[in-house]
Amino acid sequence: MKISRVIGSTISTIKSPRVMETKLLICRETDATGTEEIGTSYVATDLVDSGVGDLVLTCHGSAARQTTITKETPVDAVIMAVLDHLEVDGEVVFRK
Amino acid sequence: MKISRVIGSTISTIKSPRVMETKLLICRETDATGTEEIGTSYVATDLVDSGVGDLVLTCHGSAARQTTITKETPVDAVIMAVLDHLEVDGEVVFRK
Amino acid sequence: MKISRVIGSTISTIKSPRVMETKLLICRETDATGTEEIGTSYVATDLVDSGVGDLVLTCHGSAARQTTITKETPVDAVIMAVLDHLEVDGEVVFRK
Amino acid sequence: MKISRVIGSTISTIKSPRVMETKLLICRETDATGTEEIGTSYVATDLVDSGVGDLVLTCHGSAARQTTITKETPVDAVIMAVLDHLEVDGEVVFRK
Amino acid sequence: MKISRVIGSTISTIKSPRVMETKLLICRETDATGTEEIGTSYVATDLVDSGVGDLVLTCHGSAARQTTITKETPVDAVIMAVLDHLEVDGEVVFRK
Repeated sequence: MKISRVIGSTISTIKSPRVMETKLLICRETDATGTEEIGTSYVATDLVDSGVGDLVLTCHGSAARQTTITKETPVDAVIMAVLDHLEVDGEVVFRK
Repeated sequence: MKISRVIGSTISTIKSPRVMETKLLICRETDATGTEEIGTSYVATDLVDSGVGDLVLTCHGSAARQTTITKETPVDAVIMAVLDHLEVDGEVVFRK
Repeated sequence: MKISRVIGSTISTIKSPRVMETKLLICRETDATGTEEIGTSYVATDLVDSGVGDLVLTCHGSAARQTTITKETPVDAVIMAVLDHLEVDGEVVFRK
Repeated sequence: MKISRVIGSTISTIKSPRVMETKLLICRETDATGTEEIGTSYVATDLVDSGVGDLVLTCHGSAARQTTITKETPVDAVIMAVLDHLEVDGEVVFRK
Repeated sequence: MKISRVIGSTISTIKSPRVMETKLLICRETDATGTEEIGTSYVATDLVDSGVGDLVLTCHGSAARQTTITKETPVDAVIMAVLDHLEVDGEVVFRK
Protein backbone atom coordinates (compact mmCIF):
# COMPACT_ATOMS: atom_id res chain seq x y z
CA MET A 1 0.00 0.00 0.00
CA LYS A 2 1.11 3.55 -0.58
CA ILE A 3 0.90 6.58 1.69
CA SER A 4 -0.59 9.25 -0.57
CA ARG A 5 -2.06 12.73 -0.50
CA VAL A 6 -5.37 13.40 -2.28
CA ILE A 7 -4.62 16.39 -4.54
CA GLY A 8 -7.61 16.64 -6.87
CA SER A 9 -10.61 15.15 -8.63
CA THR A 10 -11.67 14.08 -12.11
CA ILE A 11 -14.86 14.13 -14.15
CA SER A 12 -14.99 11.83 -17.13
CA THR A 13 -17.17 9.94 -19.56
CA ILE A 14 -16.95 6.36 -18.39
CA LYS A 15 -18.75 3.51 -20.06
CA SER A 16 -18.69 1.04 -17.18
CA PRO A 17 -21.77 1.77 -15.00
CA ARG A 18 -20.26 0.41 -11.78
CA VAL A 19 -17.20 2.71 -12.02
CA MET A 20 -19.45 5.71 -12.78
CA GLU A 21 -21.04 5.55 -9.34
CA THR A 22 -17.72 6.12 -7.57
CA LYS A 23 -15.55 9.18 -6.99
CA LEU A 24 -12.24 9.08 -8.87
CA LEU A 25 -9.65 11.21 -7.05
CA ILE A 26 -6.15 12.29 -8.07
CA CYS A 27 -3.53 11.11 -5.56
CA ARG A 28 0.17 11.58 -5.17
CA GLU A 29 2.44 9.29 -3.17
CA THR A 30 4.29 10.91 -0.25
CA ASP A 31 7.33 9.93 1.81
CA ALA A 32 6.88 7.94 5.06
CA THR A 33 6.09 11.09 7.04
CA GLY A 34 3.31 12.26 4.70
CA THR A 35 5.18 15.50 4.10
CA GLU A 36 6.87 15.41 0.73
CA GLU A 37 5.01 14.39 -2.42
CA ILE A 38 7.00 12.04 -4.63
CA GLY A 39 6.58 10.27 -7.94
CA THR A 40 3.84 10.84 -10.50
CA SER A 41 0.19 11.38 -9.66
CA TYR A 42 -2.40 8.65 -10.24
CA VAL A 43 -6.16 8.27 -10.06
CA ALA A 44 -7.86 6.05 -7.46
CA THR A 45 -11.44 5.07 -6.67
CA ASP A 46 -12.43 6.57 -3.30
CA LEU A 47 -13.94 4.02 -0.91
CA VAL A 48 -13.75 6.04 2.32
CA ASP A 49 -15.27 9.40 1.45
CA SER A 50 -11.93 11.25 1.55
CA GLY A 51 -11.27 14.71 0.18
CA VAL A 52 -8.55 16.92 -1.25
CA GLY A 53 -5.75 17.38 1.29
CA ASP A 54 -6.36 14.09 3.14
CA LEU A 55 -3.48 11.72 3.73
CA VAL A 56 -4.70 8.28 2.69
CA LEU A 57 -3.66 4.69 2.18
CA THR A 58 -4.13 3.35 -1.34
CA CYS A 59 -3.84 -0.21 -2.60
CA HIS A 60 -3.02 -1.19 -6.13
CA GLY A 61 -3.43 -3.88 -8.74
CA SER A 62 -5.87 -6.74 -8.24
CA ALA A 63 -6.01 -5.83 -4.52
CA ALA A 64 -8.07 -2.81 -5.55
CA ARG A 65 -10.91 -5.10 -6.60
CA GLN A 66 -11.22 -6.99 -3.30
CA THR A 67 -14.15 -4.86 -2.16
CA THR A 68 -17.88 -5.08 -2.88
CA ILE A 69 -17.85 -1.70 -4.66
CA THR A 70 -14.93 -2.38 -7.02
CA LYS A 71 -15.35 -6.13 -7.56
CA GLU A 72 -15.11 -7.03 -11.27
CA THR A 73 -14.70 -3.38 -12.34
CA PRO A 74 -11.82 -1.91 -14.39
CA VAL A 75 -10.19 -0.32 -11.35
CA ASP A 76 -6.50 -0.71 -10.43
CA ALA A 77 -6.19 1.63 -7.42
CA VAL A 78 -8.46 2.42 -4.46
CA ILE A 79 -8.29 4.71 -1.45
CA MET A 80 -8.86 2.15 1.32
CA ALA A 81 -8.25 4.27 4.43
CA VAL A 82 -7.82 7.79 5.74
CA LEU A 83 -4.60 7.93 7.76
CA ASP A 84 -4.95 9.22 11.31
CA HIS A 85 -1.47 8.76 12.65
CA LEU A 86 2.00 7.85 11.31
CA GLU A 87 4.94 6.89 13.46
CA VAL A 88 8.47 6.53 12.04
CA ASP A 89 11.46 5.36 14.13
CA GLY A 90 9.49 5.89 17.36
CA GLU A 91 8.45 9.48 16.56
CA VAL A 92 4.95 10.61 15.66
CA VAL A 93 5.44 12.22 12.24
CA PHE A 94 1.79 12.76 11.32
CA ARG A 95 -1.42 13.25 13.29
CA LYS A 96 -4.68 14.13 11.57
CA MET B 1 -5.41 4.59 -13.09
CA LYS B 2 -3.23 6.93 -15.09
CA ILE B 3 -4.04 10.29 -16.66
CA SER B 4 -2.69 9.93 -20.20
CA ARG B 5 -2.68 11.62 -23.58
CA VAL B 6 -3.45 9.58 -26.71
CA ILE B 7 -0.54 10.32 -29.04
CA GLY B 8 -0.85 7.77 -31.84
CA SER B 9 -2.08 4.48 -33.26
CA THR B 10 -0.71 1.08 -34.25
CA ILE B 11 -1.41 -1.48 -36.96
CA SER B 12 -0.12 -4.96 -36.32
CA THR B 13 -0.46 -8.63 -37.14
CA ILE B 14 -2.18 -10.14 -34.14
CA LYS B 15 -3.04 -13.78 -33.73
CA SER B 16 -5.72 -13.43 -31.06
CA PRO B 17 -9.03 -12.75 -32.86
CA ARG B 18 -10.64 -10.90 -29.93
CA VAL B 19 -7.77 -8.38 -29.69
CA MET B 20 -7.87 -7.83 -33.49
CA GLU B 21 -11.32 -6.28 -33.30
CA THR B 22 -10.16 -3.44 -31.04
CA LYS B 23 -8.23 -0.24 -31.65
CA LEU B 24 -4.76 -0.22 -30.06
CA LEU B 25 -3.67 3.35 -29.35
CA ILE B 26 -0.34 4.76 -28.21
CA CYS B 27 -0.66 6.70 -24.95
CA ARG B 28 1.65 8.70 -22.80
CA GLU B 29 1.11 9.46 -19.11
CA THR B 30 0.82 13.14 -18.18
CA ASP B 31 1.13 15.04 -14.92
CA ALA B 32 -1.97 15.74 -12.79
CA THR B 33 -2.93 18.74 -14.91
CA GLY B 34 -2.83 16.86 -18.22
CA THR B 35 -0.23 19.28 -19.52
CA GLU B 36 3.19 17.68 -19.42
CA GLU B 37 3.82 14.21 -20.87
CA ILE B 38 5.96 12.05 -18.62
CA GLY B 39 7.45 8.56 -18.67
CA THR B 40 7.56 6.17 -21.62
CA SER B 41 4.72 5.63 -24.05
CA TYR B 42 2.59 2.48 -23.94
CA VAL B 43 -0.17 0.88 -26.01
CA ALA B 44 -3.73 0.50 -24.69
CA THR B 45 -6.93 -1.04 -26.03
CA ASP B 46 -9.45 1.73 -26.68
CA LEU B 47 -12.85 1.08 -25.10
CA VAL B 48 -14.35 4.57 -25.42
CA ASP B 49 -13.76 5.56 -29.03
CA SER B 50 -11.09 8.13 -28.18
CA GLY B 51 -8.68 9.73 -30.62
CA VAL B 52 -5.24 11.29 -30.91
CA GLY B 53 -4.99 14.34 -28.64
CA ASP B 54 -7.64 13.20 -26.14
CA LEU B 55 -6.83 13.20 -22.45
CA VAL B 56 -7.95 9.83 -21.11
CA LEU B 57 -7.96 7.60 -18.07
CA THR B 58 -6.25 4.24 -18.52
CA CYS B 59 -6.25 1.24 -16.20
CA HIS B 60 -3.56 -1.37 -16.08
CA GLY B 61 -2.83 -4.98 -15.25
CA SER B 62 -5.63 -7.45 -14.61
CA ALA B 63 -8.02 -4.49 -14.18
CA ALA B 64 -7.79 -4.02 -17.95
CA ARG B 65 -9.62 -7.31 -18.48
CA GLN B 66 -12.65 -6.47 -16.30
CA THR B 67 -14.75 -5.52 -19.33
CA THR B 68 -16.80 -7.60 -21.75
CA ILE B 69 -14.56 -6.60 -24.68
CA THR B 70 -11.20 -7.43 -23.08
CA LYS B 71 -12.21 -10.36 -20.86
CA GLU B 72 -9.76 -13.27 -21.21
CA THR B 73 -7.69 -11.49 -23.87
CA PRO B 74 -3.93 -10.76 -23.72
CA VAL B 75 -4.47 -7.09 -22.88
CA ASP B 76 -2.77 -5.27 -19.98
CA ALA B 77 -3.94 -1.67 -20.51
CA VAL B 78 -7.26 -0.11 -21.58
CA ILE B 79 -8.54 3.39 -22.15
CA MET B 80 -11.58 3.35 -19.85
CA ALA B 81 -12.67 6.99 -19.99
CA VAL B 82 -12.26 10.30 -21.81
CA LEU B 83 -11.46 12.98 -19.23
CA ASP B 84 -13.76 16.00 -19.26
CA HIS B 85 -12.50 17.94 -16.28
CA LEU B 86 -9.54 17.86 -13.87
CA GLU B 87 -9.34 19.82 -10.66
CA VAL B 88 -6.13 20.05 -8.60
CA ASP B 89 -5.93 21.85 -5.22
CA GLY B 90 -9.29 23.52 -5.86
CA GLU B 91 -8.38 24.91 -9.30
CA VAL B 92 -9.77 23.65 -12.60
CA VAL B 93 -6.61 22.64 -14.48
CA PHE B 94 -8.24 20.94 -17.46
CA ARG B 95 -11.58 21.27 -19.25
CA LYS B 96 -12.30 19.41 -22.47
CA MET C 1 10.09 -10.64 -2.66
CA LYS C 2 11.86 -7.61 -1.28
CA ILE C 3 14.36 -7.33 1.56
CA SER C 4 12.98 -4.45 3.64
CA ARG C 5 13.41 -2.70 6.96
CA VAL C 6 10.36 -1.98 9.12
CA ILE C 7 10.61 1.75 9.87
CA GLY C 8 7.23 2.70 11.36
CA SER C 9 3.55 2.10 11.90
CA THR C 10 0.20 3.54 10.84
CA ILE C 11 -3.19 4.09 12.43
CA SER C 12 -6.07 4.68 10.08
CA THR C 13 -9.80 4.54 9.58
CA ILE C 14 -10.40 1.48 7.47
CA LYS C 15 -13.75 0.30 6.25
CA SER C 16 -12.87 -3.31 5.49
CA PRO C 17 -13.23 -5.29 8.76
CA ARG C 18 -10.72 -8.00 7.83
CA VAL C 19 -7.94 -5.45 7.17
CA MET C 20 -8.74 -3.66 10.45
CA GLU C 21 -7.64 -6.66 12.51
CA THR C 22 -4.09 -6.55 11.15
CA LYS C 23 -1.07 -4.34 11.86
CA LEU C 24 -0.09 -2.11 8.94
CA LEU C 25 3.62 -1.28 9.13
CA ILE C 26 5.73 1.16 7.12
CA CYS C 27 8.61 -0.60 5.33
CA ARG C 28 11.47 0.50 3.21
CA GLU C 29 13.36 -1.70 0.78
CA THR C 30 17.08 -2.18 1.48
CA ASP C 31 20.00 -3.36 -0.61
CA ALA C 32 21.00 -7.08 -0.60
CA THR C 33 22.97 -6.69 2.63
CA GLY C 34 20.10 -5.10 4.57
CA THR C 35 22.25 -2.04 5.24
CA GLU C 36 21.20 0.78 2.97
CA GLU C 37 17.56 1.81 2.59
CA ILE C 38 16.55 2.43 -1.02
CA GLY C 39 13.48 3.52 -2.91
CA THR C 40 10.25 4.90 -1.46
CA SER C 41 8.56 3.59 1.67
CA TYR C 42 5.41 1.47 1.49
CA VAL C 43 2.87 -0.01 3.88
CA ALA C 44 2.53 -3.78 4.39
CA THR C 45 0.25 -6.02 6.45
CA ASP C 46 2.32 -7.71 9.16
CA LEU C 47 1.83 -11.49 9.27
CA VAL C 48 4.80 -12.43 11.46
CA ASP C 49 4.57 -10.11 14.46
CA SER C 50 7.57 -8.02 13.41
CA GLY C 51 8.51 -4.61 14.81
CA VAL C 52 10.29 -1.39 13.94
CA GLY C 53 13.94 -2.07 13.09
CA ASP C 54 13.39 -5.67 11.94
CA LEU C 55 14.76 -6.75 8.59
CA VAL C 56 11.94 -8.59 6.84
CA LEU C 57 10.88 -10.24 3.61
CA THR C 58 7.81 -8.74 1.95
CA CYS C 59 5.80 -10.05 -0.97
CA HIS C 60 3.73 -7.93 -3.29
CA GLY C 61 0.74 -7.95 -5.58
CA SER C 62 -1.70 -10.85 -5.64
CA ALA C 63 0.92 -12.94 -3.78
CA ALA C 64 0.12 -10.88 -0.70
CA ARG C 65 -3.36 -12.44 -0.58
CA GLN C 66 -2.20 -16.07 -0.58
CA THR C 67 -2.61 -16.36 3.19
CA THR C 68 -5.63 -17.10 5.38
CA ILE C 69 -5.40 -13.66 7.03
CA THR C 70 -5.22 -11.58 3.84
CA LYS C 71 -7.33 -13.73 1.48
CA GLU C 72 -9.87 -11.62 -0.42
CA THR C 73 -8.86 -8.38 1.36
CA PRO C 74 -7.66 -5.14 -0.30
CA VAL C 75 -4.01 -5.80 0.59
CA ASP C 76 -1.13 -5.60 -1.91
CA ALA C 77 1.91 -6.15 0.36
CA VAL C 78 2.59 -8.40 3.35
CA ILE C 79 5.52 -9.01 5.67
CA MET C 80 5.88 -12.78 5.24
CA ALA C 81 9.10 -13.44 7.18
CA VAL C 82 11.60 -11.97 9.60
CA LEU C 83 15.08 -12.37 8.11
CA ASP C 84 17.61 -14.16 10.32
CA HIS C 85 20.59 -14.38 8.01
CA LEU C 86 21.68 -13.00 4.63
CA GLU C 87 24.62 -14.28 2.64
CA VAL C 88 25.93 -12.46 -0.45
CA ASP C 89 28.77 -13.82 -2.62
CA GLY C 90 29.73 -16.34 0.08
CA GLU C 91 29.95 -13.77 2.91
CA VAL C 92 27.49 -13.45 5.77
CA VAL C 93 26.30 -9.85 5.44
CA PHE C 94 23.49 -9.92 8.01
CA ARG C 95 22.82 -11.95 11.14
CA LYS C 96 19.91 -11.12 13.43
CA MET D 1 1.34 -3.18 -23.88
CA LYS D 2 4.85 -2.13 -24.77
CA ILE D 3 6.37 -1.32 -28.15
CA SER D 4 9.59 -3.35 -28.14
CA ARG D 5 12.40 -4.47 -30.39
CA VAL D 6 13.44 -8.16 -30.40
CA ILE D 7 17.21 -8.07 -29.80
CA GLY D 8 18.17 -11.66 -29.05
CA SER D 9 17.36 -15.19 -27.93
CA THR D 10 17.94 -17.49 -24.98
CA ILE D 11 18.58 -21.18 -24.45
CA SER D 12 17.98 -22.50 -20.97
CA THR D 13 17.24 -25.53 -18.86
CA ILE D 14 13.59 -25.19 -17.95
CA LYS D 15 11.66 -27.61 -15.80
CA SER D 16 8.15 -26.67 -16.91
CA PRO D 17 7.39 -28.74 -20.06
CA ARG D 18 4.85 -26.25 -21.47
CA VAL D 19 7.34 -23.35 -21.35
CA MET D 20 10.04 -25.52 -22.99
CA GLU D 21 8.07 -25.77 -26.22
CA THR D 22 8.12 -22.01 -26.78
CA LYS D 23 10.77 -19.58 -28.01
CA LEU D 24 11.98 -17.17 -25.32
CA LEU D 25 13.27 -13.98 -26.95
CA ILE D 26 15.13 -11.00 -25.48
CA CYS D 27 13.23 -7.74 -26.03
CA ARG D 28 13.88 -4.14 -25.31
CA GLU D 29 11.23 -1.44 -25.04
CA THR D 30 11.47 1.42 -27.55
CA ASP D 31 10.02 4.91 -27.68
CA ALA D 32 6.69 5.54 -29.47
CA THR D 33 8.39 5.70 -32.87
CA GLY D 34 10.18 2.35 -32.52
CA THR D 35 13.51 4.08 -32.97
CA GLU D 36 15.25 4.46 -29.65
CA GLU D 37 15.64 1.53 -27.25
CA ILE D 38 14.88 2.47 -23.66
CA GLY D 39 14.89 0.77 -20.27
CA THR D 40 16.26 -2.66 -19.41
CA SER D 41 15.89 -5.73 -21.59
CA TYR D 42 13.47 -8.52 -20.67
CA VAL D 43 12.58 -11.98 -21.92
CA ALA D 44 9.19 -12.77 -23.51
CA THR D 45 7.54 -15.89 -24.87
CA ASP D 46 7.12 -15.52 -28.63
CA LEU D 47 3.58 -16.26 -29.84
CA VAL D 48 3.82 -14.79 -33.35
CA ASP D 49 6.98 -16.30 -34.81
CA SER D 50 8.93 -13.04 -34.65
CA GLY D 51 12.69 -12.69 -35.04
CA VAL D 52 15.65 -10.52 -34.04
CA GLY D 53 15.14 -6.96 -35.33
CA ASP D 54 11.33 -7.11 -35.43
CA LEU D 55 9.34 -4.36 -33.78
CA VAL D 56 6.69 -6.09 -31.67
CA LEU D 57 3.94 -5.53 -29.15
CA THR D 58 4.39 -7.31 -25.83
CA CYS D 59 1.93 -7.71 -22.99
CA HIS D 60 2.85 -8.24 -19.39
CA GLY D 61 1.70 -9.72 -16.12
CA SER D 62 -1.32 -12.01 -15.95
CA ALA D 63 -2.32 -10.76 -19.43
CA ALA D 64 0.56 -12.85 -20.79
CA ARG D 65 -1.28 -16.03 -19.79
CA GLN D 66 -4.53 -15.26 -21.62
CA THR D 67 -3.58 -17.46 -24.57
CA THR D 68 -3.89 -21.20 -25.16
CA ILE D 69 -0.08 -21.60 -25.36
CA THR D 70 0.81 -19.76 -22.14
CA LYS D 71 -2.25 -20.57 -20.01
CA GLU D 72 -1.26 -21.72 -16.50
CA THR D 73 2.47 -21.49 -17.28
CA PRO D 74 5.08 -19.44 -15.36
CA VAL D 75 5.22 -16.75 -18.06
CA ASP D 76 4.90 -13.00 -17.35
CA ALA D 77 5.55 -11.49 -20.81
CA VAL D 78 4.54 -12.51 -24.35
CA ILE D 79 5.12 -11.13 -27.82
CA MET D 80 1.51 -10.84 -28.99
CA ALA D 81 1.94 -9.03 -32.32
CA VAL D 82 4.44 -7.94 -34.95
CA LEU D 83 3.98 -4.22 -35.56
CA ASP D 84 3.38 -3.19 -39.16
CA HIS D 85 2.76 0.50 -38.81
CA LEU D 86 3.03 3.19 -36.13
CA GLU D 87 1.53 6.64 -36.37
CA VAL D 88 2.32 9.41 -33.86
CA ASP D 89 0.66 12.85 -33.96
CA GLY D 90 -0.63 12.19 -37.47
CA GLU D 91 2.73 11.19 -38.95
CA VAL D 92 3.71 7.65 -39.95
CA VAL D 93 6.81 7.02 -37.83
CA PHE D 94 7.28 3.33 -38.59
CA ARG D 95 6.38 1.06 -41.50
CA LYS D 96 7.58 -2.53 -41.65
CA MET E 1 10.91 -12.59 -17.42
CA LYS E 2 14.16 -11.13 -16.23
CA ILE E 3 17.74 -12.22 -16.86
CA SER E 4 19.28 -12.25 -13.39
CA ARG E 5 22.36 -13.35 -11.50
CA VAL E 6 21.98 -15.31 -8.25
CA ILE E 7 24.10 -13.38 -5.74
CA GLY E 8 23.18 -14.80 -2.34
CA SER E 9 20.84 -16.65 -0.02
CA THR E 10 18.50 -15.96 2.90
CA ILE E 11 17.47 -17.73 6.08
CA SER E 12 14.29 -16.53 7.71
CA THR E 13 11.44 -17.38 10.03
CA ILE E 14 8.51 -18.01 7.73
CA LYS E 15 5.07 -18.92 8.89
CA SER E 16 3.77 -20.43 5.66
CA PRO E 17 4.82 -24.13 5.66
CA ARG E 18 4.83 -24.47 1.84
CA VAL E 19 7.27 -21.54 1.40
CA MET E 20 9.53 -22.93 4.16
CA GLU E 21 10.35 -26.02 2.09
CA THR E 22 11.88 -23.94 -0.70
CA LYS E 23 15.21 -22.14 -1.11
CA LEU E 24 14.88 -18.34 -1.22
CA LEU E 25 17.79 -16.84 -3.16
CA ILE E 26 18.89 -13.24 -3.63
CA CYS E 27 18.96 -12.25 -7.32
CA ARG E 28 19.96 -9.21 -9.23
CA GLU E 29 18.81 -8.34 -12.74
CA THR E 30 21.53 -8.06 -15.39
CA ASP E 31 21.68 -6.49 -18.82
CA ALA E 32 20.89 -8.57 -21.95
CA THR E 33 24.42 -10.02 -22.03
CA GLY E 34 24.36 -11.23 -18.41
CA THR E 35 27.42 -9.12 -17.66
CA GLU E 36 26.40 -6.01 -15.79
CA GLU E 37 24.14 -6.16 -12.72
CA ILE E 38 21.44 -3.49 -12.76
CA GLY E 39 18.60 -2.37 -10.53
CA THR E 40 17.92 -3.44 -6.94
CA SER E 41 18.28 -6.99 -5.67
CA TYR E 42 15.22 -9.14 -4.96
CA VAL E 43 14.46 -12.54 -3.45
CA ALA E 44 13.07 -15.41 -5.53
CA THR E 45 11.99 -18.98 -4.79
CA ASP E 46 14.40 -21.37 -6.48
CA LEU E 47 12.66 -24.03 -8.59
CA VAL E 48 15.65 -25.30 -10.57
CA ASP E 49 18.31 -25.99 -7.94
CA SER E 50 20.47 -23.03 -8.96
CA GLY E 51 23.33 -21.58 -6.95
CA VAL E 52 25.24 -18.36 -6.31
CA GLY E 53 26.84 -17.12 -9.53
CA ASP E 54 24.35 -18.78 -11.88
CA LEU E 55 22.69 -16.70 -14.58
CA VAL E 56 18.99 -17.49 -14.40
CA LEU E 57 15.58 -16.56 -15.76
CA THR E 58 13.07 -15.33 -13.18
CA CYS E 59 9.37 -14.69 -13.56
CA HIS E 60 7.36 -12.30 -11.48
CA GLY E 61 3.90 -11.56 -10.15
CA SER E 62 1.11 -14.10 -10.40
CA ALA E 63 3.20 -15.98 -12.99
CA ALA E 64 5.43 -17.09 -10.12
CA ARG E 65 2.59 -19.19 -8.71
CA GLN E 66 1.92 -21.19 -11.91
CA THR E 67 3.93 -24.17 -10.65
CA THR E 68 3.01 -27.08 -8.38
CA ILE E 69 5.57 -25.96 -5.75
CA THR E 70 4.50 -22.32 -5.49
CA LYS E 71 0.75 -22.66 -6.19
CA GLU E 72 -1.31 -20.68 -3.64
CA THR E 73 1.76 -19.58 -1.68
CA PRO E 74 2.79 -15.97 -0.89
CA VAL E 75 5.52 -15.96 -3.55
CA ASP E 76 5.93 -13.22 -6.18
CA ALA E 77 9.17 -14.27 -7.92
CA VAL E 78 10.63 -17.63 -8.93
CA ILE E 79 13.80 -18.80 -10.63
CA MET E 80 12.29 -20.81 -13.47
CA ALA E 81 15.40 -21.68 -15.53
CA VAL E 82 19.19 -21.71 -15.53
CA LEU E 83 20.38 -19.88 -18.64
CA ASP E 84 22.77 -21.84 -20.87
CA HIS E 85 23.19 -19.48 -23.78
CA LEU E 86 22.32 -15.88 -24.67
CA GLU E 87 22.51 -14.42 -28.16
CA VAL E 88 22.14 -10.69 -28.83
CA ASP E 89 22.11 -9.19 -32.35
CA GLY E 90 23.47 -12.44 -33.82
CA GLU E 91 26.42 -12.72 -31.40
CA VAL E 92 26.74 -15.26 -28.60
CA VAL E 93 27.14 -13.07 -25.52
CA PHE E 94 26.88 -15.76 -22.84
CA ARG E 95 27.63 -19.48 -22.71
CA LYS E 96 27.48 -21.42 -19.46
